[in-house]
Amino acid sequence: MRVGFIGTGIMGKPMAHNLLRAGFAVSVHNRSRSRLADLISEGAAWMDSPRAVAAASELIVTMLPGWAEFEAVLVGSDGLLAGIRPGAIHLSMETVSPGQARRAAVMLQELGAHGLDAPVSGGEQGAIDASLAIMVGGAQEAFDVALPVLQAMGRNVIRIGPSGAGQIAKACNQLIVAVTIEAVAEALALARAAGVDPANVRRALAGGFADSRILQDHGRRMLDGDYLPGGQAKHHLKDRAVVEEIVAATGIDLPVAEAAFARIATLVERGRGELDHSALFTLFSDDAAREL
Amino acid sequence: MRVGFIGTGIMGKPMAHNLLRAGFAVSVHNRSRSRLADLISEGAAWMDSPRAVAAASELIVTMLPGWAEFEAVLVGSDGLLAGIRPGAIHLSMETVSPGQARRAAVMLQELGAHGLDAPVSGGEQGAIDASLAIMVGGAQEAFDVALPVLQAMGRNVIRIGPSGAGQIAKACNQLIVAVTIEAVAEALALARAAGVDPANVRRALAGGFADSRILQDHGRRMLDGDYLPGGQAKHHLKDRAVVEEIVAATGIDLPVAEAAFARIATLVERGRGELDHSALFTLFSDDAAREL
Repeated sequence: MRVGFIGTGIMGKPMAHNLLRAGFAVSVHNRSRSRLADLISEGAAWMDSPRAVAAASELIVTMLPGWAEFEAVLVGSDGLLAGIRPGAIHLSMETVSPGQARRAAVMLQELGAHGLDAPVSGGEQGAIDASLAIMVGGAQEAFDVALPVLQAMGRNVIRIGPSGAGQIAKACNQLIVAVTIEAVAEALALARAAGVDPANVRRALAGGFADSRILQDHGRRMLDGDYLPGGQAKHHLKDRAVVEEIVAATGIDLPVAEAAFARIATLVERGRGELDHSALFTLFSDDAAREL
Repeated sequence: MRVGFIGTGIMGKPMAHNLLRAGFAVSVHNRSRSRLADLISEGAAWMDSPRAVAAASELIVTMLPGWAEFEAVLVGSDGLLAGIRPGAIHLSMETVSPGQARRAAVMLQELGAHGLDAPVSGGEQGAIDASLAIMVGGAQEAFDVALPVLQAMGRNVIRIGPSGAGQIAKACNQLIVAVTIEAVAEALALARAAGVDPANVRRALAGGFADSRILQDHGRRMLDGDYLPGGQAKHHLKDRAVVEEIVAATGIDLPVAEAAFARIATLVERGRGELDHSALFTLFSDDAAREL
């Protein structure tokens, strides 16, 4: 299958690399060709526009920072929609809102093509290892055709439901991630406030019901003060907006998620939005400093 | 080592069984002797009071429902303190507050004995499998002597710090458990409200950053409506009291933990405190029912 790839950033580049390694013919485009030198040397074909990528591909992957960048690639005389072939599949792997995902799928459908929303979880390491969790929304038939491509980039590939459902699952994922990071931060801060070494507490909780990937990874970051991203805190405010869009549409009450997202907003307001989200732990040091 | 065991309930009985299996000489007491028939047939020696258990033992384990039951066993003319031998060790494995744990340790110290607080995480299955996480507070020397006994009951045995520190770690554990269960409930409720099958979402999140033992175990319970305990929701209100005691003493602000404990209080108010804590998910059905 001829695969196009647009959005070769921190996540996208290793994902495109994994497609090449799996034997797919890959064409790529980036505003700066020099950024793609490594992929081109590995066999990727350079195209001078998103339109040209689409025209050369049966399946096109985008992995862009968000909706603004995605829409800029999609529309216009050099855009993806201008070149897309009837029957082609577009895999939208960036995180956008469910409504935006459905809008893109409708635009594709009007041109006889198929849109799948397929956001991921697992971070840069998951992209490198091809171990991403990939949550897919869209028609079963298109999912079946795209599956070999998805499996070249991820380990846990699940079709959640119709168009937009992948982004809904991603919002659920981000809700749990935000709340669990704050839970671990509160527990370690509680231990420290009570005069106990939080490193011992983290070690003791391993294997019990409180154990999680976040206790392991983000808990260690908190104890080491290692806040190089990772997942930048400010990106969680986009996730908050997606969750609040669903909340507004359905009237559901999510008090703990709201409290956790409010903490992230405080962190961003204090100028720490570029740090890893585990920097939520620093809010407790602010409080302690104010006490002095 | 001669070991005494008081508190042979759902957790305590398999723990005492594991001590017998590890080759310790175990003496036991219970208000109802008939409840101990199985342990006695396996070689445990029956004693007619906590005092007699203490007099026969170098190390005494208690695994009682809470402070009221623990104090009743400790004091009085037939109590544990009346029989304890100088140099003996008491392992308090029930969940009480850090202050209560320190108070018990002081009473033991005044009699020349040593108190360790050693609460657990891992539930009935962990007690049966001897795979409990055990969080220990107290003197290093007493911990070293007690370690073979602890390792016969648990897999992750960590000395957290001085007297009371085990209970502080347990409070941190319970905070994370309460918040993470509510996070999983909110995420699955969000998926359902948005028209997506929450079972697909749970499956998709496995292996990503949102994954945890609670997503696996309690997430499955929510989807199956299987709320037989497990960990009863009402017990989390004791944990809330312990956390709030530390909060009051230190001035630390734990907004997400408070929001999660408030949800548990709502669940208990609605008469569902005997259910497993994963029944937090039912609060979203209440909301949906009110909408109709």
